[in-house]
Amino acid sequence: MKLLRVGTAGAERPALLDQDGTLRDLSGLVTDIDGALLADEAALDRIRTAAASGELPVVDPAGLRTGPPVGRIGKIVCIGLNYHDHARETGADIPTEPIIFFKAPDTVVGPDDTVLVPRKSVKTDWEVELAVVIGRTARYLDSAEEALTHVAGYAVSHDVSEREFQIERGGQWDKGKNCETFNPLGPWLVTADEVPDPQALSLRLSVNGEPKQNGTTAEQIFPVAEVVRYVSQFMTLYPGDVINTGTPAGVALGQPEPKPYLRAGDVVELEIEGLGRQRQELKDA
Amino acid sequence: MKLLRVGTAGAERPALLDQDGTLRDLSGLVTDIDGALLADEAALDRIRTAAASGELPVVDPAGLRTGPPVGRIGKIVCIGLNYHDHARETGADIPTEPIIFFKAPDTVVGPDDTVLVPRKSVKTDWEVELAVVIGRTARYLDSAEEALTHVAGYAVSHDVSEREFQIERGGQWDKGKNCETFNPLGPWLVTADEVPDPQALSLRLSVNGEPKQNGTTAEQIFPVAEVVRYVSQFMTLYPGDVINTGTPAGVALGQPEPKPYLRAGDVVELEIEGLGRQRQELKDA
Repeated sequence: MKLLRVGTAGAERPALLDQDGTLRDLSGLVTDIDGALLADEAALDRIRTAAASGELPVVDPAGLRTGPPVGRIGKIVCIGLNYHDHARETGADIPTEPIIFFKAPDTVVGPDDTVLVPRKSVKTDWEVELAVVIGRTARYLDSAEEALTHVAGYAVSHDVSEREFQIERGGQWDKGKNCETFNPLGPWLVTADEVPDPQALSLRLSVNGEPKQNGTTAEQIFPVAEVVRYVSQFMTLYPGDVINTGTPAGVALGQPEPKPYLRAGDVVELEIEGLGRQRQELKDA
Repeated sequence: MKLLRVGTAGAERPALLDQDGTLRDLSGLVTDIDGALLADEAALDRIRTAAASGELPVVDPAGLRTGPPVGRIGKIVCIGLNYHDHARETGADIPTEPIIFFKAPDTVVGPDDTVLVPRKSVKTDWEVELAVVIGRTARYLDSAEEALTHVAGYAVSHDVSEREFQIERGGQWDKGKNCETFNPLGPWLVTADEVPDPQALSLRLSVNGEPKQNGTTAEQIFPVAEVVRYVSQFMTLYPGDVINTGTPAGVALGQPEPKPYLRAGDVVELEIEGLGRQRQELKDA
């Protein structure tokens, strides 16, 4: 299923994009797409049955904003340098175990919402990423095989990053990862049953129509199942938590000087096979 | 005022500790102590008036658990190496600007709840810290003076840390800061009007009755007002967000080998002048 949330920011309604591409209202069935729903197999089954019946109310998508596909996100765990090609382009060593940093849930916006270039930023960069959304509490998981049963679904995530704040301002990466609007998410949460192999997805990103990233999750150093298992050794993952699993090569940081960092007026478009497309215009904060 | 939340984990009720030390129920006045309340001056005034009247229902504290004093925390921003004496003991340079890392809100427990030593942990460490709770949205603040008007209040925070996970496991500190139960908070949120100078508070921590940390916020490299101003340049702070402002000297990491890291059965007690005391027993996860 493709689950999504539509409407004004902060007042989104749950919806479903059905197999025919018709937008259907879920607000008669569930209050929101969030961790509580994703942990509730019976509720998900009710949505599945209602979707199959073809009787869910149709929603007119004209002029309707798409919000992030998950509400009340508890935490966003990010994996750094998780693609062979991206590690190479940044000149970093291949990590021997996953690098973990955080984005705050308040950085999340809809897939087509405006992204703000922070004040005094000169190195705002893009990163298309596969987001994993947790459906079952994951704590000290024993195996990577087991880990995938804790995944509710997948989504497109844009891990917008300010490289000066991240790398040159003392210490930890979080400083360049948490500016407001820095995590467009969606359009959809595609349930895990419709993503048979998360390691065979192509990811693409362009800036002002010019291709910048064109990768595949096959290049991930630590695949999704291993990432979930690994993270669960250090913290408990709860339903509605999100993991941004890293970005392939092609970010501005990896390019020759002068690096083409983002500015107000730029348009970023990104896409993952089967998970939908995002389009953001940059503005000044 | 001393605001707190009492009752079973996840089902705490709002309460107030009045000037006589009597516990009073606030659930007839407000639904919770959270960002929404802290941003609502009128609601806080209603609590003040009711408290002054002496007519709020008395709560029997016997056998009653104290939860964290803030619910629905949006994010926890932590400042690293923010005390001169702690930077010295760890052999680190004095930071030229604040180091920022994150704890997830799901690490927060009550002040006297059990703290779990993570599986495979051999370097679980303590850190008593002054927590700042945000009351008004703070975004690109111009001055440190202005910053303090965005603070709702203060609390005792225990920034429990796993040093091997934090420092020796590849990359970013967050990996050792987000184990479950790693952020005891409380007992109270003391409103800012009752903390005239946040740079003149003594902090103390003991393990099994033996004094370990005995510091003062006067030693902070970046005082609270500057921390709030600085953080607001990189991210937006919302009501109910928490900033852990760093720890003074005396952590296990700073002591000679064999460093006295925490184990199951240890008891940690910590306290900040005027903000109350915490007591946690360590158990294995």
